[in-house]
Amino acid sequence: MTIPELQVNTRRLRDDVDALARIGRREDHGIYRMSFSPGDMAGRAWLCQRIADSGLELHQDGAANIGARLNWDGKTPSVMAGSHIDTVPGAGHLDGALGVVCALEALRVLQEQQIALRRPLEAVAFTDEEGRFGGMFGSQAMAGLVTPDYLRHAVDLNGISLIDAMAQQGLDAEEALHAQRAPGSIHAYVELHIEQGPVLDRKGVSIGVVDAITGLFKWEITLTGTANHAGTTPMDMRNDAFQGLAEFSGQIDRILEEYGSPRSTATVGRVELIPGAANVIPGQVIFSLDVRDADEATLKLLAEAFSRALSAIARRRGLKFEFAVLSELAAVRCAPQVVQAIETSVEKAGLSSTHLPSGAAHDAQIIAGIAPAGMIFVPSKEGRSHSAAEWTAWADIEAGANTLLNTLRRLASTS
Amino acid sequence: MTIPELQVNTRRLRDDVDALARIGRREDHGIYRMSFSPGDMAGRAWLCQRIADSGLELHQDGAANIGARLNWDGKTPSVMAGSHIDTVPGAGHLDGALGVVCALEALRVLQEQQIALRRPLEAVAFTDEEGRFGGMFGSQAMAGLVTPDYLRHAVDLNGISLIDAMAQQGLDAEEALHAQRAPGSIHAYVELHIEQGPVLDRKGVSIGVVDAITGLFKWEITLTGTANHAGTTPMDMRNDAFQGLAEFSGQIDRILEEYGSPRSTATVGRVELIPGAANVIPGQVIFSLDVRDADEATLKLLAEAFSRALSAIARRRGLKFEFAVLSELAAVRCAPQVVQAIETSVEKAGLSSTHLPSGAAHDAQIIAGIAPAGMIFVPSKEGRSHSAAEWTAWADIEAGANTLLNTLRRLASTS
Repeated sequence: MTIPELQVNTRRLRDDVDALARIGRREDHGIYRMSFSPGDMAGRAWLCQRIADSGLELHQDGAANIGARLNWDGKTPSVMAGSHIDTVPGAGHLDGALGVVCALEALRVLQEQQIALRRPLEAVAFTDEEGRFGGMFGSQAMAGLVTPDYLRHAVDLNGISLIDAMAQQGLDAEEALHAQRAPGSIHAYVELHIEQGPVLDRKGVSIGVVDAITGLFKWEITLTGTANHAGTTPMDMRNDAFQGLAEFSGQIDRILEEYGSPRSTATVGRVELIPGAANVIPGQVIFSLDVRDADEATLKLLAEAFSRALSAIARRRGLKFEFAVLSELAAVRCAPQVVQAIETSVEKAGLSSTHLPSGAAHDAQIIAGIAPAGMIFVPSKEGRSHSAAEWTAWADIEAGANTLLNTLRRLASTS
Repeated sequence: MTIPELQVNTRRLRDDVDALARIGRREDHGIYRMSFSPGDMAGRAWLCQRIADSGLELHQDGAANIGARLNWDGKTPSVMAGSHIDTVPGAGHLDGALGVVCALEALRVLQEQQIALRRPLEAVAFTDEEGRFGGMFGSQAMAGLVTPDYLRHAVDLNGISLIDAMAQQGLDAEEALHAQRAPGSIHAYVELHIEQGPVLDRKGVSIGVVDAITGLFKWEITLTGTANHAGTTPMDMRNDAFQGLAEFSGQIDRILEEYGSPRSTATVGRVELIPGAANVIPGQVIFSLDVRDADEATLKLLAEAFSRALSAIARRRGLKFEFAVLSELAAVRCAPQVVQAIETSVEKAGLSSTHLPSGAAHDAQIIAGIAPAGMIFVPSKEGRSHSAAEWTAWADIEAGANTLLNTLRRLASTS
């Protein structure tokens, strides 16, 4: 039996995207829905109301993840779609929000059209993906990664703790320790998200089939030389820490070509010179190195190559070289059955698509630890991300929403 | 007639250096005698007392420059020695102060020993060399470079104006407009200073005969690309502003070798990345470029070469390139008759010496505009400068003081 491809209610989807986009918006400055802020709380209230309006079952777990449930029986492993509605300060209207609204719309369509399904469905908005308190709190709680120690140390930039911020909203953060989902209780997880990169936009393609979520390592590197007067120290008597960084930066492309894949990236995004005065040779430079690839073995080779290059440069230039690992995230391959369901849905709808990795981290990366997971990307105009200027054409949003809908239907229908 | 080389009173010189070193000192944090601060005012009071004690004539001009005068007749052009007693915050005890104390000591010896001289002598402490209000205020006033506009705009980092700071000490800043010395009224100017660089210390030489004071240009350069997510933007779709700077920095040595002299220096001392986050490709970098050489033509060639290199890099990388000139200071060749007098004094005393340029700016650079000028350097241990750890061996200080004394005698004796 061939079921015709389903279509979302474009009008309703668009109204929801627009309605949520007004919540937490500051005129001309983008959206402010940082986790448990007034904006986020207003967004949560709106979402709960929309779920209630739809007749779907509303469920909030101990990590304050908000879910809509369809055909829930408490036993059969569910097919889950989701993302997050919290934002960075000054955000655009799509990041996270689009995935949640499309997931909710998919469940509404499946419910309205009374599609026969073998599995229950869930549409989830995860708590604090963006990281006011560290990031991916909700998905980590669901994956059983939140510990009492995690809770004790989760504070925002102003020193407000997650525990206090939740308490202020009448929530007990300790409950997050009980938000873990039982093994096998999630049959598959699908997340729709804007690409946050330029690939689909430049290629003019509507759908990105994500085949992996890149892993990363983020180092803070310190090169220490000697601060001296810029005018009185001849070039051959210097230990200029910044020149060490400049030489290293010049080797990034070579190292990626030699040890990386065509998808590898490496970025020096933060640089601090000490003392940092125009007439003083930098005695010290502290900088970040963010390296990503979709393959763990490649990441390991890159880490070794970058470390070797830094050691050699430091040795030759008489600099001291130290580094601290700021974060590491394992690369995740998307589950073949989820990728397959997305591909089929794209194909049946005759949409243009391409495979690509997700260079950004997402809740999907965490949920992939406890369930087969995959992602659907839609284009971001000029790759914009975390910006009020974030934009995706409605035709692409519709294509993405329909792809999510049909992917969920497929995953919930097959055994 | 051969006059034997004169010697300073080492005990008295040392006592003066030590006494001045205690004024404005904060335990373990160095010396704080920023212009017109309590520390500077205490240093000024001490200096005036020492001049009075010596029986030399005390003179303070409209820019609050403090002078000791010997054989003053108001007509004959004088031989002047000087430097400054104001300091940067947390300074060492030698920068500036040593030149003033040695100049005073030289006048005391010439007076005591009743050396027959054709010209009057002056030992001067210039106001605000270090730049609380912009720098070299006293010498600029003496050279006629201070205008009403200059006075209006001179403010410190806390927004306190020079006019108010002087008024608080009972001084009228407007008087600085009358501090200009008549053309031809200064026969020669000599400044003793620590090198503030490593050359003499590394060579193990006591005296540096300064043959030129380097000129400089200081640019603030902005390269603008596109800020994008570090994880989602493939390497070949980036306009990374920092990579532009890194490439440019890698070309500094080549450009100095091709267009500069062995004495040329170029320094990137300040770097600001925008937005400056580990996971964002730098959309913009603002950095300083400080370039120095003792020859004006060479400086011009270097300016052109650096500008060409920046343009080419920006064009190739799709970056916008802008620059602002923060400051320019013309290179000054020291006066041959002053250099000759220093050389003769060094030679007669059998001291080790070398010629070198001054890489730092000094009052001598300003006074050179109205009088033949030269400088004597003594070593700075490890090139330390503007640091509480600043240090010069007493044997070298004594050698420098004697060289200044005999140089002044020679300049004041010859026709």
